[in-house]
Amino acid sequence: MEKNPQNDLVYPGERVDDLQNGLYVIQNPEKFCFGMDAVLLSGFADIRQNEKVLDMGTGTGIIPFLLKAKDKGSHLTGLEIQEECADMARRSVSYNHLEADIDIVCGDIKEAAEIFGAASFHAVTSNPPYMIGQHGLQNPYMAKAIARHEILCTLEDVVSQAAAVLKDRGRFYMVHRPFRLAEIFQVLMKYKLEPKRMQLVYPYIDREPNMVLIEARKGGNSRITVERPLIVYEKPGVYTSDILEIYGRV
Amino acid sequence: MEKNPQNDLVYPGERVDDLQNGLYVIQNPEKFCFGMDAVLLSGFADIRQNEKVLDMGTGTGIIPFLLKAKDKGSHLTGLEIQEECADMARRSVSYNHLEADIDIVCGDIKEAAEIFGAASFHAVTSNPPYMIGQHGLQNPYMAKAIARHEILCTLEDVVSQAAAVLKDRGRFYMVHRPFRLAEIFQVLMKYKLEPKRMQLVYPYIDREPNMVLIEARKGGNSRITVERPLIVYEKPGVYTSDILEIYGRV
Repeated sequence: MEKNPQNDLVYPGERVDDLQNGLYVIQNPEKFCFGMDAVLLSGFADIRQNEKVLDMGTGTGIIPFLLKAKDKGSHLTGLEIQEECADMARRSVSYNHLEADIDIVCGDIKEAAEIFGAASFHAVTSNPPYMIGQHGLQNPYMAKAIARHEILCTLEDVVSQAAAVLKDRGRFYMVHRPFRLAEIFQVLMKYKLEPKRMQLVYPYIDREPNMVLIEARKGGNSRITVERPLIVYEKPGVYTSDILEIYGRV
Repeated sequence: MEKNPQNDLVYPGERVDDLQNGLYVIQNPEKFCFGMDAVLLSGFADIRQNEKVLDMGTGTGIIPFLLKAKDKGSHLTGLEIQEECADMARRSVSYNHLEADIDIVCGDIKEAAEIFGAASFHAVTSNPPYMIGQHGLQNPYMAKAIARHEILCTLEDVVSQAAAVLKDRGRFYMVHRPFRLAEIFQVLMKYKLEPKRMQLVYPYIDREPNMVLIEARKGGNSRITVERPLIVYEKPGVYTSDILEIYGRV
């Protein structure tokens, strides 16, 4: 839904989506639009007042926008390697007049600790590329391929840099695919990010999960809470009340 | 239900439970009776004809009995450290005339590789003690305490010995508590048992899971299938069809 299509912040081919929480995000459907994973991660992340948060691989900036709407007092930084994408996210920040609350930085996740300094955030979020290297079908559009495949950064890059920029006891929130769960835990623990909370997202109650939400704590002890299952659809086309509640909250 | 209470295989204080699959198991309710975890693990384990299987910490021998009923051609060995318990399991074997198919060995899980030799089983099952060391309330009855708390063996003991006695590509099946999931994955991978399949057991659809079923493969690659949620109760006192199906199958 376009608020003001004539707005000079919005370029040809782009559209403005109403997040239904008072905020809007500019997206280019030719490139990459945010999905339910970003929404569920924002609902899962527990960000508090006055916290500094980094979103690694922010794309359109969707996660900072959703977190901002939910947690008024926090300060959010979105890190995005693709200049065109970072520029679009920056224009979304201006569109929402959130320049004081959200920074979009164009840069490489692999250099996050260099860019921001060690131990500089209370929390880090990430909806990283799910697919390993060149495995699986790659998207012919480079922007989508970079968002979905580990072309420019691996899981270990994301986790190691998150660990570096987090303060002690800081929290790392990530959404990923269940098939990589064992590797995810292994890499998190390698960098002293202890998995503390996990929720599996099942499309239907009788289907395998297709997303996993994870919270890890820097320097935490070894004990994880696995939360109740998050079921997406009651039946085809009908969301469960859990999903409607999350969409209403973020 | 006692088949023949006069049977001299059954000692005072013991009872004979009908497994509803043609087999019976002797139990002593003063000590330790098998629970749903053993049943679900037996349903989850995929044992094939002519395989040699070791159950570590077999207790009453329930898992070998359930696997035997499901997979006729396999040969099962139950390892149990408590002599009294091993003796009772051995009497259950006689009760069912399964001496040719099930061996009960009294011995220490920590010495499994010494007792049985390296690479001697196609599959290993275990329903190990869930609770860490002296944490939590310990049961005043030693037999129950040993079954529930890591008094005589730790998770790492179970996993390292399972890895040692498994043939290459052999499978390890374990039921455990979700709160130890991160540690479980870490220890499995440390001993080259790659987590390949996992199912979370939720008492109700809107509750946290209280059991996790895991299959790991010796020398497997890093990719895990997380299965659909296993929900136990439809409503209080009413099992779901999934649970009834498993109880019917094992």
